[in-house]
Parts: sequence; C-alpha cells; structure tokens
Amino acid sequence: MLLLLLRAFKHPDVSYDKVDWTSDVETHPPWLRFHLGISRWELYNRKDPNMAGLTHYLATQRILSAVQKTGGTQLKLLMSFPNYGQALLKPMKQARDAETDGNLFYFSDFERHNAEIAAFHLDRLLGFNRVPPVVGRLINVTSEVREITTDHKLSRTFFTSPAGNVCFYGQCEYYCSLEHPVCGQPHALEVSLAAMLPDLTLAPRRSWRSPWRRSYSRTKLAQWEKDPAYCDTVKQTPPYNHGTRLVDLIDMAILDFLMSNMDRHHYETFEKFGNETFLLHLDNGRAFGRHSRDEPTILTPLKQCCRIRRSTLLRLRLLSLPAGRLSDVMRESLVQDPLAGAAPLLSEPHLSALDRRLAAILQAVQTCQHQHREIIYNDLEGYDGDFNQQPD
Amino acid sequence: MLLLLLRAFKHPDVSYDKVDWTSDVETHPPWLRFHLGISRWELYNRKDPNMAGLTHYLATQRILSAVQKTGGTQLKLLMSFPNYGQALLKPMKQARDAETDGNLFYFSDFERHNAEIAAFHLDRLLGFNRVPPVVGRLINVTSEVREITTDHKLSRTFFTSPAGNVCFYGQCEYYCSLEHPVCGQPHALEVSLAAMLPDLTLAPRRSWRSPWRRSYSRTKLAQWEKDPAYCDTVKQTPPYNHGTRLVDLIDMAILDFLMSNMDRHHYETFEKFGNETFLLHLDNGRAFGRHSRDEPTILTPLKQCCRIRRSTLLRLRLLSLPAGRLSDVMRESLVQDPLAGAAPLLSEPHLSALDRRLAAILQAVQTCQHQHREIIYNDLEGYDGDFNQQPD
Repeated sequence: MLLLLLRAFKHPDVSYDKVDWTSDVETHPPWLRFHLGISRWELYNRKDPNMAGLTHYLATQRILSAVQKTGGTQLKLLMSFPNYGQALLKPMKQARDAETDGNLFYFSDFERHNAEIAAFHLDRLLGFNRVPPVVGRLINVTSEVREITTDHKLSRTFFTSPAGNVCFYGQCEYYCSLEHPVCGQPHALEVSLAAMLPDLTLAPRRSWRSPWRRSYSRTKLAQWEKDPAYCDTVKQTPPYNHGTRLVDLIDMAILDFLMSNMDRHHYETFEKFGNETFLLHLDNGRAFGRHSRDEPTILTPLKQCCRIRRSTLLRLRLLSLPAGRLSDVMRESLVQDPLAGAAPLLSEPHLSALDRRLAAILQAVQTCQHQHREIIYNDLEGYDGDFNQQPD
Repeated sequence: MLLLLLRAFKHPDVSYDKVDWTSDVETHPPWLRFHLGISRWELYNRKDPNMAGLTHYLATQRILSAVQKTGGTQLKLLMSFPNYGQALLKPMKQARDAETDGNLFYFSDFERHNAEIAAFHLDRLLGFNRVPPVVGRLINVTSEVREITTDHKLSRTFFTSPAGNVCFYGQCEYYCSLEHPVCGQPHALEVSLAAMLPDLTLAPRRSWRSPWRRSYSRTKLAQWEKDPAYCDTVKQTPPYNHGTRLVDLIDMAILDFLMSNMDRHHYETFEKFGNETFLLHLDNGRAFGRHSRDEPTILTPLKQCCRIRRSTLLRLRLLSLPAGRLSDVMRESLVQDPLAGAAPLLSEPHLSALDRRLAAILQAVQTCQHQHREIIYNDLEGYDGDFNQQPD
C-alpha cells in the first residue's frame, strides 16, 4: 500500500483514484489480484474468474498516461490507468492477411499487436498459462496518447499524414522513423495491451539465455545448428540437468513453432522461485508473421533432445482430434477479444497453419519414439513433474 | 575518341571492346549516336531509328561492371557495357499493383523501376522527348552485379535471404538496410536501365530549383501553397519572365500530375544551350506510386499561372479522344518493353488514372479560360515559341 501511495505522490498532476483498498482481496483491482495470484507453477489459473475481470479492465479503463517504454528494439508504450494498473501497448503494424516478406530475417521482422494477443490465447489453450494476459483495444491516438503524454520524445514525433491520419513513430532502434509511422484512421488505432508483471523491485526476475538461441547474424550459424548432438551437452549443463527446466524449454519451443516465433533469444523466471519454476513466455510480437510455411528449426530442442512433458503431449494429441481441433478452439477463443469485431485476430490461413504445425510436432515425437524407443518412453514418463495438468 | 581511349586506359582490367569507330556516324554505338543527337529543343527525335537501337542495346548488351552511383538518396547502380556505354540502374522495389502507403510523405516514398520506364514512355507520348531513354531488363544479381562489381561497399551488403534469394542493399541515405533488401528470385531481378547523358565534363548541366518546389517538411508549407498570386512573382523573375521557361515548367507539371510525381524539387538544363532550351525530366522513380487518388497540388503552376503551351494543349486534347486515349496509347507503348512479358509495366488502375488526370488538366485549362478569357488566349497563343510540335 505504501508503494502505491508513493507512486501517487510522484504523479501529483495525474488523477489516480483515491486508494480505498482493504486487506480484503475483494476490494483489489484486477491487476493486483493478478499479481497476487502468480504461483511458482504458473502465471495465472485459467479458471480464476479474475482473468475475465482483468482483460475487461485493460480493455475499458480510462487511460491516464502514455509514455515510451525503453528496452527492446521496437516502439512500445507504457499505459497507466486510474487505480495504478499499467499495461504494455504494442500498436498495429501489419494487416491481418499480410505475410512478412520472406527476404527479411527474423531479427528484422516487426512486431504485431495481434501476435501478442493470439500468443496469450494459444499459450493458455496449450495449458501453459505463462504469457501475461493480453487484450486488444481500439484507442484514440490523439486523446489517449498525444494529448496526455508527458513524454516529449514521443510527442514530438506526432504528425498528420498526407492521408489525413494522426501518426507517430517514437524513438527506438528499429522502425522508429517517418518512413514507418504508426497511424490512426484518422485517430483510431488497434493496439494490444498486455498486463504488466509486478514491478521488478517487488518481484525481481532472472533472464536466461536460451541454449537454442539463434545467431542473430545473416551469416553465422549457432552451435546447435552445427552439432546434432548439441542436446547432450545441454542435458549436462545446469539448470537443464535437473528438474523440469529442459521440458519447460521444449514446451516453449512447441509454442514458438506453432506460432512460428523465431525471436526467443532469452526467457525469464521469477527470482524468488529459484530454478524450480515456470518460464515466462514474454514478448511474442514477432510470432504469426508467416502462415504459408513452417520453420522446422524452431522445433530443434524437441528433435535433438527427444523429450516432451507428458501433459503437453496429451494436450497436443487432444488438440489434434477433430472434436477439439486447435484451429477451432483458437478461433473460438480469439472471438472473445474486443478487436475480433473488426476482423478475426488471426486470418484463416494462420489458423490452418496451427493444425499443420501441430501435426508436425506429433510427427517429430513419433520419429523420436521410433528412433530411441526406450529412452523416449523414459523421458516421456520422467519429466512430468509438478506440472501435470490434465486437459480440461 | 581520345576520351574513349583514356577511359579504356583507366580500366585495364575490364574488357571493353577495341574501339574501331570512324568519323562515319554509322560505326558509332547507339549510346554515342544518342549523345550526338541531343539538340537545344529536345533530348532525342522520336522518329530517329537509333532510339530502337538504343533501347535494344541497353536491354541486351553484356554487363561489364556495376558500381553504386553516389548522389541522390536511394540505391542506384551505374552499369557499364563493352563499348563504353553506361546506364543507370534502378531495382524493382514494389509489386506492380501495390500502392504507396497513404501515410508516407512524398519524400519518404521509395523509387520504382517501372515508374522510370513508364515516365519515359509517357513523356515521349506527350511529345516532350525530355526523359532519357529507359528500358526494363531482367538481370542476374549474382553474375551481373555481385561477381563483377569492384565496389566493396556494395559487395559486402550481399546476402542470401531466409527465402533463399540473393539480396543486397548497398549504402545510401534511405532504405539501404537489411530491413529493405533488393532481392533476386533467386537471382533474377527486374530493373530499369536509363541511358546516361553525356559526361558532365563534356556537357555540363545547370540545376534549377523549381519555384513550385515542395517544402520537404512534414509541417512547413511552401510559399506557393500560401500565396494564390504566387505566379505573378514568378512571371517577373528571370528566367521565367522571358521565352518559354514558364510554359516549359508547366509542361513538366502536367507530366508530373499525370504520373503523380511530387518529387520534382529541381530540374536541369544543358549549360551550353543557355536559357533558351528544353528542361530535362530526370529522375522519375517516385512517380506512379498511387492510382486511387490524384494530387491536385502538382498542377498548381498551371492553375496559378493559367498558361499552357499550345502544342501541349493540342496533344492533350488529342489524347483525350476515344480514338487515341492516353491509357490506350500508353498500354500499347509499354508493351514494347522487354519486361512487359512478365507483367504489364503499369497495372490497369494506373492506366485508368492517366485518363482521369488528363480530364482534370483539361478542366483546369477550361477554368482558366472562363476566369480570364482574354489573358488566357493571349498566353495560349503567345508561348508556343520554337517548340511548336504538331501531334503526329
């Protein structure tokens, strides 16, 4: 509570709500209940009624302030709401049916607001619950950003485009220029709003370099691309030599392969939970860039290690059955987003790609089983750990 | 001849043809005949049989070298042929049916190879003959650029893209980055090749700032945008107060309005012809970016001055008749380009836009005539000068 009062004190010009929360959790705003509900095993419980409250909150609360969020390479804004809630905003950059140019590298692709939204839904449907809740919203770039921001570096990049739209580009490493404006029509802009995690001072996080990180070079190969036995080394290296970390990483690779996200160079965990905890699946803006082809290298951790968490495999099998096909449950889930009214969050080709990629994952598992029957069965049995969630 | 020998001497490693030209013009290569044919009144005579020879030459000659051409803001290459001919290359950057994003300013638009080609055809059909001949060509970026270039700054930007294409991006002010690659499929790339003008040491040129230059700012207006009587000042300012310079400028505005080129900040003339000479219509790569709307401000010189060269008006009227409609003659003309086999150089919406814009020009002339009947007739009669070309 003190922290909240301090924050209110630091922004005397901004009309935050008067805090009248008690120790009774019922009086807490949805963002705080979300923070309090984070466990060692998952970021949220998908059956928690607060989840609907949280997305409704992000989608409807009055926006009090908007400033650029530093860190990362592309434009994103930190939005604040009256009762101290905050969200990370990513703007629409690409039409739903557009595909990323096949001549661009994964590290040159731009971020998509609908990828952030769809990644949250997909991660939840896979039973992971490791992506912070994200919701779509149609904002007014004039009244909800330009007129209220105190960020001068941001506000001086606003302009009216030749087509008469209000646009801005901000300051960042990539695509923050007059040649790559973010534009309202003329003021309305689709954005994604992701719930912020607890402040780093309250809940510090640890960043881990992915062992299957790409080289981020147009010429160099990473070690895992050159060495088919690369997983043998990883398996012996802490923290992958113990507990569920390796199958956690493979869960993440499965999520990334399904949505064709090649940009997973690091992942984070909450420091206070030590090494025995779930991996945060943050920053999914470069997913869902292409539907017409798959990127088999994203599955390399699964293929090289031949391990998969049992609950994940069961869930994937379930989602491959006609009765609950992944594309169908995703379509059904995404339709609940406020932006679905304008256009489906994922176009049909992207939804179909999910089914095709799911089949490819199951095929990879089968290949592992044929190659090393016994070892695989051991692994399949052995790494279920505490995460054994039955599909519901 | 001495000059040619000197150039051969300067490139001992490049296999230029042995020069065996005599003073007989028949032995000259097409590029030299083009240079020798430049007059005070036009860049070429459209009935000169050498014109077909020149475009065939540009489209088929073996490429000996390729280096970046400095100056200007976007990537372009200087290509050399065995008998000392040279051409300016602009690569394909945009699909034929793509439209420039309406939120981009004219000065952020990228250059299009097909705009360079179409501008040459349009300028010729308007009877101006002031654009250097341009032809399309399918080149092999590996064997005809990468493997033969001596330009290290260029060659180190080559790479193989994720889609397996050979790409490069060069060094320049705008769009020369890994995020904006120029790519073959996997080696084949459509380009425009424009005949080079005589070397500046032989035929120096003068650059003139256009009185109707845009502000090249996203906030500032130019003087002509604020002052409806702006032309009164221009008419009294040398060289626009004498001879045909003002109607020459209006010819250029008509060409630019037809192809929606907003990027005409300067124009050039050959110094040796003094002020009584034609204006070069160079650098048309930013034309034909949008077909769905017109840019009325490009016609401002015509609207503010209410002057037009008689031969231009006659030609425009002829091109508005059903028998010889501009879109039809353009379609017919462009089909002769070597790249027309792959896809029409201008899509049908761009061709239709030409007819719509032509009607708008004739409407503007009529408005002038209604407003200032006598003055206009004087101007229409008085500025025909030496350029009186009857439509053929």
